[in-house]
Amino acid sequence: MKYEILDINSVKEFVFNINNVKEYLAVSSLAELTSSEIGDGNLNFVYIVSNKFDATKSLIVKQAVPYLRCVGEEFPLSRERMTYEIRALLKYQEICSEYIPKIYYSNEAMSIVVMQNLSEHIILRKGLIQHHYYYNFIEHITTFLAKSLFFTSSLSLDSKAKRDLIGQFNSNTELCKLTEDFVFTAPYMEDETNNINEECISEAKEFFNNNEEFKKNVLELKYLFMTSSDTLIHGDLHTGSIMINENETFVIDPEFAFFGPFGFDIGALIANIINSYISHSVILSDEEYKNWLLNSIEEFYTKFEEKFLNLWDNQKSSSLIKEGFIGSEMLDEYKKEFMKNIFISSIGFAGCKITRRVFGVAGVEEIRGLENKEQRKKAELQALELGQQLVLQYKNITNTEQLIKIIKSV
Amino acid sequence: MKYEILDINSVKEFVFNINNVKEYLAVSSLAELTSSEIGDGNLNFVYIVSNKFDATKSLIVKQAVPYLRCVGEEFPLSRERMTYEIRALLKYQEICSEYIPKIYYSNEAMSIVVMQNLSEHIILRKGLIQHHYYYNFIEHITTFLAKSLFFTSSLSLDSKAKRDLIGQFNSNTELCKLTEDFVFTAPYMEDETNNINEECISEAKEFFNNNEEFKKNVLELKYLFMTSSDTLIHGDLHTGSIMINENETFVIDPEFAFFGPFGFDIGALIANIINSYISHSVILSDEEYKNWLLNSIEEFYTKFEEKFLNLWDNQKSSSLIKEGFIGSEMLDEYKKEFMKNIFISSIGFAGCKITRRVFGVAGVEEIRGLENKEQRKKAELQALELGQQLVLQYKNITNTEQLIKIIKSV
Repeated sequence: MKYEILDINSVKEFVFNINNVKEYLAVSSLAELTSSEIGDGNLNFVYIVSNKFDATKSLIVKQAVPYLRCVGEEFPLSRERMTYEIRALLKYQEICSEYIPKIYYSNEAMSIVVMQNLSEHIILRKGLIQHHYYYNFIEHITTFLAKSLFFTSSLSLDSKAKRDLIGQFNSNTELCKLTEDFVFTAPYMEDETNNINEECISEAKEFFNNNEEFKKNVLELKYLFMTSSDTLIHGDLHTGSIMINENETFVIDPEFAFFGPFGFDIGALIANIINSYISHSVILSDEEYKNWLLNSIEEFYTKFEEKFLNLWDNQKSSSLIKEGFIGSEMLDEYKKEFMKNIFISSIGFAGCKITRRVFGVAGVEEIRGLENKEQRKKAELQALELGQQLVLQYKNITNTEQLIKIIKSV
Repeated sequence: MKYEILDINSVKEFVFNINNVKEYLAVSSLAELTSSEIGDGNLNFVYIVSNKFDATKSLIVKQAVPYLRCVGEEFPLSRERMTYEIRALLKYQEICSEYIPKIYYSNEAMSIVVMQNLSEHIILRKGLIQHHYYYNFIEHITTFLAKSLFFTSSLSLDSKAKRDLIGQFNSNTELCKLTEDFVFTAPYMEDETNNINEECISEAKEFFNNNEEFKKNVLELKYLFMTSSDTLIHGDLHTGSIMINENETFVIDPEFAFFGPFGFDIGALIANIINSYISHSVILSDEEYKNWLLNSIEEFYTKFEEKFLNLWDNQKSSSLIKEGFIGSEMLDEYKKEFMKNIFISSIGFAGCKITRRVFGVAGVEEIRGLENKEQRKKAELQALELGQQLVLQYKNITNTEQLIKIIKSV
């Protein structure tokens, strides 16, 4: 199939020609289909295609174009990103399908995927801003992470299967480079891409120029990101990449997926819950909600570790550890140290992820979007302080209690 | 070109059809060519093709077959290994051509490479057994290693170039698996592939069964080997992969090449010089030669580090460190810690490389080949002890003095 960019009309034709999709939508003629565009896709075109006479029958069609949709053709970005999104979604479908939208069709040549329309869910970031509680979120996301990180690692896959899978994602250079630049470099130095609140000019200057120890640690973490092929990571697992309601949790948008360090997705999530905590701290004093957020962080890592270790305990032999190689007592010791390293790097990555949102090109709505100038400044400076603390101390923070203590202290 | 296995006759025809090769050999008819087979290729067929009337004009033709040549067709091994050997040779030709044989022709489809005939050089392992001094060796091999490891790492390559290069080697699964199995697993446990000296049966049993701390550290090192995409490594850089004479040093046989940890090639070399030291310690008391070997180890790492850092100092900007990101004082501190990590892992890998030669399937000639039973046993037990010490202590050995002290103490 040759690549062509679909529009609001041709998307209907396209969908009508895919048998299982047509079947799902229960239409027998093109005229029974209706389509609309979702405006908030930054990178891609996103359409809803529905049965005109039964709105419950609808699907999402997402197509990448060879530029950044929200900016226009003058900002080229390879549409190959959809290739990696498709491959990650298909892999997740294999190992933790309950936490991604159902995939009905995908085509790398067309840079297109057709999937479940999550019409009863909202972006977690918005839900948190709106002060919602999600009591199943931690249970769901820890299962997603434990399974996706464990089953694509050398703790589970045989060497050939792992290398084959690495090969599928190795060329996701462009998006990895975005992370190298915008998570690990530009937001910590004078750079034209930065977006600095004019209320914080002097603090930014101070931060850029007097932060050598912090920068050294950032280099350590960036190097880990660039060279550790632990496992298939989502690569951009912030609260904007999660669709949620009280009962269900779906991870979306894995176009940054590649083989990277265990701690990166974990750190991204911790960072974004912390951002929400900071935001709520400056705008209201609902201690209950703030406590729920803090407890969520603690529960998040504890449950993740428990589930990950549980999967590991059930894996009798792997490319790393042949059955009978080592006694169970020492193996437990090895696992303990292994998990400690995952935790440590998660904290370091969380620190980067928090800090980069302060002066970097991409902020987070719950902080940069604060309309009250004083609140925004306060939240930004708290995030700056906390992010720095985590990066500076990451190798010494070895449990969630310590982490929570540091969060509270800022 | 379709793959076909050449023999001692067809190899002449093949060579005659390659223009630059024909030119180099200065022949104008097939009848002017003569060929012979080199018997000691374990994996591949290796021929010398020469000008019948001028023996100085000769080249090596090396072709992989889809099985282990020394065992026969019943031991299949993909001929793809030559693909990786060719790619590594061509990369080395770009960045450190003076330390590999000159390449005249290569063809991945035919799994064949035509290269300089190193007729005035011998395998370093044999040279060391024969008690030769090579006063230029350390100078040469440290330049080779500094350049090959630096220029294919994220300290030098941009992100896209590095990922492209990783892609060229990512599928070298079969040979990586050999290392995972025969350097990091089987030689440390009861395994049918092991080759245990009958004089050491009880020591082997003791070693296999009471060595949990050692095995935990082996797992750490194996995990590094399997997941650290630092740089393009040779992957099998022992003294049998080096051809040498007083003036020249050539690295050969990089079929194990892939993106792995910095310390692996360094550790392999240290291990093999140590094996030579152990061998000489049990058969003679030529203190001068033993001292030369020990000094070589010290000089080897010191010079490697100096050259590597020198290349790094000349690299103003890289995918890891953008110019201006960090001050020079803290950058030096970062480099110091970076080099310390390389050293530490080198020691760990050296420990594995020494230990695995004791009871594993592949021994080293200077120890396993000792005809005097007592000497062999003594050397094996010394290697066992020293290898274990290095693996057990690798994280605490931070300079060459400490290393030399441990070697001397065993």
